[in-house]
Amino acid sequence: MSSEKEPHVVIVGGGFGGLWAARALARSRVRVSLVDRVNHHLFQPLLYQVATAGLSMPDIAAPLRHILRRQPNATVLLAEVVDIDRGARRVCCADGSALDYDYLIVASGARHAYFGHDEWAAYAPGLKTLDDALLIRRRVLTAFERAEAEADPVKRAAWLNFVVIGGGPTGVELAGTLAEIAHHTLRREFRRVDPAAARVLLVEAGPRVLASLPEGLSAKAATQLRRLGVEVHAGRAVTAVDADGIALGEDRIAARTVLWAAGVAASPLGRCLGAPLDRAGRVIVEDDLSLPGDPNVFVVGDLASRQQDGKPVPGVAPAAKQMGTHAAKMIKARLAGSAATPFRYADVGSLATIGRMAAVADLGRIRLSGVLAWWFWLLVHILFLIGFRSRLIVLINWSWSYWTYQRHARIIVGREHKDDA
Amino acid sequence: MSSEKEPHVVIVGGGFGGLWAARALARSRVRVSLVDRVNHHLFQPLLYQVATAGLSMPDIAAPLRHILRRQPNATVLLAEVVDIDRGARRVCCADGSALDYDYLIVASGARHAYFGHDEWAAYAPGLKTLDDALLIRRRVLTAFERAEAEADPVKRAAWLNFVVIGGGPTGVELAGTLAEIAHHTLRREFRRVDPAAARVLLVEAGPRVLASLPEGLSAKAATQLRRLGVEVHAGRAVTAVDADGIALGEDRIAARTVLWAAGVAASPLGRCLGAPLDRAGRVIVEDDLSLPGDPNVFVVGDLASRQQDGKPVPGVAPAAKQMGTHAAKMIKARLAGSAATPFRYADVGSLATIGRMAAVADLGRIRLSGVLAWWFWLLVHILFLIGFRSRLIVLINWSWSYWTYQRHARIIVGREHKDDA
Repeated sequence: MSSEKEPHVVIVGGGFGGLWAARALARSRVRVSLVDRVNHHLFQPLLYQVATAGLSMPDIAAPLRHILRRQPNATVLLAEVVDIDRGARRVCCADGSALDYDYLIVASGARHAYFGHDEWAAYAPGLKTLDDALLIRRRVLTAFERAEAEADPVKRAAWLNFVVIGGGPTGVELAGTLAEIAHHTLRREFRRVDPAAARVLLVEAGPRVLASLPEGLSAKAATQLRRLGVEVHAGRAVTAVDADGIALGEDRIAARTVLWAAGVAASPLGRCLGAPLDRAGRVIVEDDLSLPGDPNVFVVGDLASRQQDGKPVPGVAPAAKQMGTHAAKMIKARLAGSAATPFRYADVGSLATIGRMAAVADLGRIRLSGVLAWWFWLLVHILFLIGFRSRLIVLINWSWSYWTYQRHARIIVGREHKDDA
Repeated sequence: MSSEKEPHVVIVGGGFGGLWAARALARSRVRVSLVDRVNHHLFQPLLYQVATAGLSMPDIAAPLRHILRRQPNATVLLAEVVDIDRGARRVCCADGSALDYDYLIVASGARHAYFGHDEWAAYAPGLKTLDDALLIRRRVLTAFERAEAEADPVKRAAWLNFVVIGGGPTGVELAGTLAEIAHHTLRREFRRVDPAAARVLLVEAGPRVLASLPEGLSAKAATQLRRLGVEVHAGRAVTAVDADGIALGEDRIAARTVLWAAGVAASPLGRCLGAPLDRAGRVIVEDDLSLPGDPNVFVVGDLASRQQDGKPVPGVAPAAKQMGTHAAKMIKARLAGSAATPFRYADVGSLATIGRMAAVADLGRIRLSGVLAWWFWLLVHILFLIGFRSRLIVLINWSWSYWTYQRHARIIVGREHKDDA
């Protein structure tokens, strides 16, 4: 147990950045308080699998306090941080409680954003949390049910049209998996409609999908998507989203299920720090990830804006983990009287899965696509899942899904509330 | 595929009664429509495990249309039946759609009921659906979190007091499992509170818990509950439930988490049938389970009121399955011109689990309690789970939980809405 006199490190956010920072401080003579508004760490790279009923929630989430149970200097608090008072060195929570810090690591990440079209949120849910995933799962599975019950062929077609907006990794994963569900998983289960008649459209405003990858892999991803049955519409900007579907300029597409994967905005906590932000609302940090002019405050993960070799450090899990670990190292250095060192992102390559047996990987000199990339993706993701139990269960679930095309978590819970549209 | 000319059997409800009826009609020249307001069949005997984070939703639920995918004469419809017009032989749904039937099997079960105290529902959620289970899970896990954040010792104690109202099987299971969570699962995970300081109270108005079992087993169950750390209060009626706790006559117990397992009432659809109901709102059926005066309509499962050898047929899964199968047999007999036969419940015994290594079983001549009963319970429940996949996964989850005391599904989703209190 730690003493009240030891420096207090408050970490806001239990994602990859915050959790890795907390773990890196395990052997330090500090008190660590990890604050998150949910009780679990989420393995976000597999969240789309929960949304598409391939995995269930506990497969990709574990309680933060369970993960940190053997780290006596760490306290986990379930609270929503709403303000940061750097003058008083205090973090304020929605329930009125407050935490005084000596060091602060802000790792509150990003939410999906509609770029000035917040009214689209009701019709096109995004995917960042488990609640989002359950909502998307409900919308997708209910759409097939509504199609089965619908007598009017025009209305039925609208229930069988699925639009995914945004051709980044999440959009590609969602579109590829939706196509698999329609063409394989639901086969033979409906009597009036043929789920294989469903259309899955992936709309990307930019010229190509997976724009962060080299052009060759991007093209291969598009080919694999089309082979899975996805209609890829690149270079088309969405101009309207409503209850009936979307508009691409003059063209209207009738679709009762629209998913948003077009972009994220940094957590609003960035604005509380009084530091310069970049265009996406991320905090521009110093070389050592500290706040300009305040060496006791660090920003890591998706909320941090950092350039390296003329390119931004990407908003991916490995970068967040490395940043979290670095911020913890900087605090230890300060306590030991050592000098700060600059953060350097060690690029481990990019991986994007597309669907069954389809993926692309950019590992620097090696580029993979298709089946081989998919196996590599599977291996990496199972290895990085936290906790042996999850790995085993996920492996069994995936093997099962692979051989049977089944998705075991096809359970609709909850009802649509008014704010869900 | 079945022809439009074949008789149309509409089954309302995809629980044990309805699903077993549908399956029993697989080889008959009828069209079967199974209507349910949720998309899944639920293995209700294990629902308390989802509520207490031991299992996740897909472990105990499977999509109805997936279960029936290889039965071409069966159509599954997701709809909420709100009325039955026996004159027109028509079932009406909440979305305005309607189904005309030649034969009708009503298997819409029961909901938990507050016996004239509906205002208690907000403070003491009951457990009948997956949504109920997720709500209870959220309340229980959040209570420990709130205790950890609470500085005032009196308020903290109220967060650590858990009251279960009702000493039937569900109440006993919930209380036993809550005690295990407090004393084992959460050990070492909190820094400010000791979860083992939590009190779990089981309140039963009648003189003993598990009143449907012989007195000896009832007493053994109470002993096992106390050994697990549950305070058993039998012969005490709850007189008030509110946000601060409960009242037992003059005594008040401060508790922020109260769960309701004190009773069920039959589905309101029973009232639409225009047939005599018993005191619990269940439909009094003929010997062959048909409605008095209407041989084309059958009522099965928890909604049916049936006496046998001077005792009511119990509201348990085996009885519902047997009734569903019998109703299907009666329809086949009618189509073949054979005579109706009376339903006879084949009693397979009673089993109730209490907690880790604690259960009681009444198998007629053989009565078991303790470890042996628990292993028997485990075996039976895994064998009866639908679908090989679930059995395997549940077995792995349980083995894991057993050795580690961990409950893998400790994920809080959703937020409290106003109507949750």
